[in-house]
Amino acid sequence: MIIDCHGHFTTAPKELQAFRDEQIAGLKQPAEPRTKRGLTITDDQLREAVQPQLKFQSDRGTDVTIFSPRASAMAHHIGDLTTSTHWTEHCNDLIYRVCELFPKNFVGVCQLPQTPGVTPDTSIAELKRCVNELGFVGCNLNPDPSGGMWNAPPLTDKHWYPFYEAMVELDVPAMVHVSASCNPNFHATGAHYLNADTTAFMQFLTADLFKDFPTLRMIIPHGGGAVPFHWGRYRGLAQDMKRPPLPDLMRDNVFFDTCVYHQAGVDLLMKVVPHENILFGSEMVGAVRGIDPETGHYYDDTKRYVDAAAISDGDRARILEGNARKVYPRIAKRL
Amino acid sequence: MIIDCHGHFTTAPKELQAFRDEQIAGLKQPAEPRTKRGLTITDDQLREAVQPQLKFQSDRGTDVTIFSPRASAMAHHIGDLTTSTHWTEHCNDLIYRVCELFPKNFVGVCQLPQTPGVTPDTSIAELKRCVNELGFVGCNLNPDPSGGMWNAPPLTDKHWYPFYEAMVELDVPAMVHVSASCNPNFHATGAHYLNADTTAFMQFLTADLFKDFPTLRMIIPHGGGAVPFHWGRYRGLAQDMKRPPLPDLMRDNVFFDTCVYHQAGVDLLMKVVPHENILFGSEMVGAVRGIDPETGHYYDDTKRYVDAAAISDGDRARILEGNARKVYPRIAKRL
Repeated sequence: MIIDCHGHFTTAPKELQAFRDEQIAGLKQPAEPRTKRGLTITDDQLREAVQPQLKFQSDRGTDVTIFSPRASAMAHHIGDLTTSTHWTEHCNDLIYRVCELFPKNFVGVCQLPQTPGVTPDTSIAELKRCVNELGFVGCNLNPDPSGGMWNAPPLTDKHWYPFYEAMVELDVPAMVHVSASCNPNFHATGAHYLNADTTAFMQFLTADLFKDFPTLRMIIPHGGGAVPFHWGRYRGLAQDMKRPPLPDLMRDNVFFDTCVYHQAGVDLLMKVVPHENILFGSEMVGAVRGIDPETGHYYDDTKRYVDAAAISDGDRARILEGNARKVYPRIAKRL
Repeated sequence: MIIDCHGHFTTAPKELQAFRDEQIAGLKQPAEPRTKRGLTITDDQLREAVQPQLKFQSDRGTDVTIFSPRASAMAHHIGDLTTSTHWTEHCNDLIYRVCELFPKNFVGVCQLPQTPGVTPDTSIAELKRCVNELGFVGCNLNPDPSGGMWNAPPLTDKHWYPFYEAMVELDVPAMVHVSASCNPNFHATGAHYLNADTTAFMQFLTADLFKDFPTLRMIIPHGGGAVPFHWGRYRGLAQDMKRPPLPDLMRDNVFFDTCVYHQAGVDLLMKVVPHENILFGSEMVGAVRGIDPETGHYYDDTKRYVDAAAISDGDRARILEGNARKVYPRIAKRL
């Protein structure tokens, strides 16, 4: 079985965006009541909406996608906690319905109702609802709910600890994933995402978060941002700072996915990062949608790169399935 | 001749830091006059201070270093334009003196008196002084003078255009280089530097800056941040956005250095990035000071990685010398 740990519902029915547009328009009338109106989306609409993902699974030979709401649309910086809660519940409910409709193809991971300046404690209830009631196996945690202003404390700050306690109690990991950028310096998928990955890794390297939470698990997507390319820099920084060697730092706690869209990049990832810390992921249908004229295949068909990488078959199996089962233990009940 | 395009005076005599400490302490007495007191540093002190760099040049077989003030100490976010101007002039004057003492070993690149919220026009006078009077061949341009708040306009914004006009008129390039981070999310050398590199590349990719300034040249240090590792992502993003192919985008305008501290990283850089857009650089004495136990050599001895890379001798010569002469044409008068 091949598990893609990184897929987003980027193809949701337009009714979802209509709700969001209405919600954003409503922010201009702060005196109006803050009700959460229902969404009218049929099962047939949902079946139709995930056809692209199903076709990619079938074409690429993958089995199941760990599926979460569209990352760039989380936009935690818009509105307040009520805005974010209503929006998040709808997004997660749709993921739940897709997973129920196609239980062999999708397993849910939730968005959180994070809000700039608001404690992440307020996301615990939604995490519990999604895991306990909807059968989700993890969450996407935004280290920068401000959308590019970076004014929340680092992920290693005690600010986040109550939320981590809930993750540990539920035995679910988080993918560290920012959302849209409202900072004109940062293109979302071309800068903000990768910067957040790099930033999170260095935060983990410089603090003792995983001494405090030995079973806390974080997936850094997009191949770990800049980290594998600068593996020597990070090894040297850890050494200069008398921090643990990187494989010890990562061992049970920090994982990179394979969302790196060319063979040379995936080859480097495999060459330097311990194979037990790599999870297969494609980010489909996601950041890059085109076909690479050099290969004739989709840029984000990352399974091809993993298949072609010079690694042992045992390691390939771990990357394609085994590591995901360890990082997301609740997936066993779903598959 | 081997030209290292990226060296900082990280070993300056302690009198320089004493000036800075005094200057920062003075910011707490805003009523006091803002005089720029002189620095008393002898030529012998300067000769002594650059012994580490000279020894590394000799040990590693490099000839000349394009030398600029310590990047993390620029700290444009401290104080105001007067603070930054006094500090910058002293830092640049020391670089000038080192270059005069060792004209075969060092060529100067200047820091700029950038200040958050102040137009970069105010840096033009110092650029001209350094180039016309001190014989410098380029500058370090900080895309985020706030030190991690990222509240300046992108590098492609007209905000920067008058400064670019001065660069073009003087025929000098800029290395895009941030300084210390006062944002607790961003470790300076482990996150902020690389994020800035990645961010700048994506800004260049998405705008027509080099149509407006066909001869403007920007060096993105640290191997281009995350870009080579995610070369497929950038190729795909450019394609999706109907932007030029990356080699066309970079050709005469965007260059990466080789400050990547392991063989596998440099190999990837050489594999994907056009060789005419790579300049040899080591960042010494800089971000990582240790010896790699896997090789027995300094992490930042990047010449070893370039020497071992599978590229033609012609390309190696271009990377080690020829490209730097093209990007920094004023170097010809100095060497």
